[in-house]
Amino acid sequence: MTKIIVSAPGKLMLLGEHAVVYGQPCLVTAVGQRMKATVELTDEAVFQLDAPDVKVEGYKKPMSELGQGDIPKGAKFVEMAIKNFFNRHPGRLVKDLGVKITTQSEFSSQFGFGSSSASTVCVLKALSEITGASLDNKSIFDLAFKTVIDIQGKGSGFDVAAAVFGGTLYFIKGGKVIEPLNIDSLPLIIGYTGIKFDTVALINEVAKKAEKYPEVIDNIYQQIGKLVEQAKKAILSKDWASVGELMNFDEGYLASLGV
Amino acid sequence: MTKIIVSAPGKLMLLGEHAVVYGQPCLVTAVGQRMKATVELTDEAVFQLDAPDVKVEGYKKPMSELGQGDIPKGAKFVEMAIKNFFNRHPGRLVKDLGVKITTQSEFSSQFGFGSSSASTVCVLKALSEITGASLDNKSIFDLAFKTVIDIQGKGSGFDVAAAVFGGTLYFIKGGKVIEPLNIDSLPLIIGYTGIKFDTVALINEVAKKAEKYPEVIDNIYQQIGKLVEQAKKAILSKDWASVGELMNFDEGYLASLGV
Repeated sequence: MTKIIVSAPGKLMLLGEHAVVYGQPCLVTAVGQRMKATVELTDEAVFQLDAPDVKVEGYKKPMSELGQGDIPKGAKFVEMAIKNFFNRHPGRLVKDLGVKITTQSEFSSQFGFGSSSASTVCVLKALSEITGASLDNKSIFDLAFKTVIDIQGKGSGFDVAAAVFGGTLYFIKGGKVIEPLNIDSLPLIIGYTGIKFDTVALINEVAKKAEKYPEVIDNIYQQIGKLVEQAKKAILSKDWASVGELMNFDEGYLASLGV
Repeated sequence: MTKIIVSAPGKLMLLGEHAVVYGQPCLVTAVGQRMKATVELTDEAVFQLDAPDVKVEGYKKPMSELGQGDIPKGAKFVEMAIKNFFNRHPGRLVKDLGVKITTQSEFSSQFGFGSSSASTVCVLKALSEITGASLDNKSIFDLAFKTVIDIQGKGSGFDVAAAVFGGTLYFIKGGKVIEPLNIDSLPLIIGYTGIKFDTVALINEVAKKAEKYPEVIDNIYQQIGKLVEQAKKAILSKDWASVGELMNFDEGYLASLGV
């Protein structure tokens, strides 16, 4: 097999945003729109990427230089994912083998549905299959999360988990807990404000506040964690009114953080 | 002396709104706009009120019927204040004595500056002087707070305290603590949304939430209380940037409560 097409869903944070970075649990769900990646092994030791959704077209680089030099923003996650995959599984790297990838998304990278994480997961899953490494989901998660951290320096991995496992998850940072919740679907209407924030910049801003008001911020994280525990129960018992009320409390805490 | 003019300032809650009803401290300040009351003793045992700001004009009632029957909204606080004053100080009630009051406000009763409390305080202070009872400020506060509770059933009295004592106060419900903060002025710009809420309805709404989520709500009150303690220190050291930051946290908590 030299060509494979894989897809992974976008994610939507339900409850626990931001606090998840500091070890609190969160609830995240996969959405019905997907990122698709076509991955081919080629005979030339070159990495090629076409990701028109993020304005990367005809991007090429020797396999030996993966992760080096200036990388266009839209290519970073895919390129680092390939690098991490072969670093972790060097036996799968055939000499003079190249990788050609085309990604295509059902959702805009502007929507905050986690397009970077979804494309990272697609590429890792594709390489896992195409090279015969056959990694399990947790191993895919670990490699994808490492890739995100390599690039962003920060994050919790909840978006990666949603892309790998799908469904609705109770999640703790780094995949310490990834617990699928046994529900078919969520009766949600999603509104889009049109505003996409820079996650890392927001994390840094709150971290600055936490230096000045450590107890205030720490308490907010703990309270968000408690809301998540209550919402998990409410979701499992399909008590949607309570889920909504708990989300409203959460929004206030997030407003308090300035997030 | 049969005629006296007194005035009391409007109030602005700085920090601690709502949680103050549940025993947490708050910070409240008097504003530079005042309620004015002209109070006369008359020879006829009739209560007369002109309060054009709240559309009460030519309102009359025998002194013996104070507090009875249907009372126009705009007359309630003044009428109950007179009743409470003479109930508490019956020796000051001369037979066939009447009270004629005209109130006039520098601020609209729509502004949430506490016009009801300010007019209550004005009337009590005027009666205290005009009858020679010469109550001290704490006694005026106690009678005015009782009047508010008689009418609303609920409240903390912070607006009454601002009207009685002026300046900027650290306050705990019912006047358990009324601590003037030694600062000349506050560098504040006040915006007005145009929206005036029904305080009692809001209190009841949050109380309903507290029944379902007691720990969530209780924690929010406690955290607001902690913000107040920090803001008190920040105000005393004129650290206005911190006061603003603490207010921002507070706004989030209030949003969380739905207030």
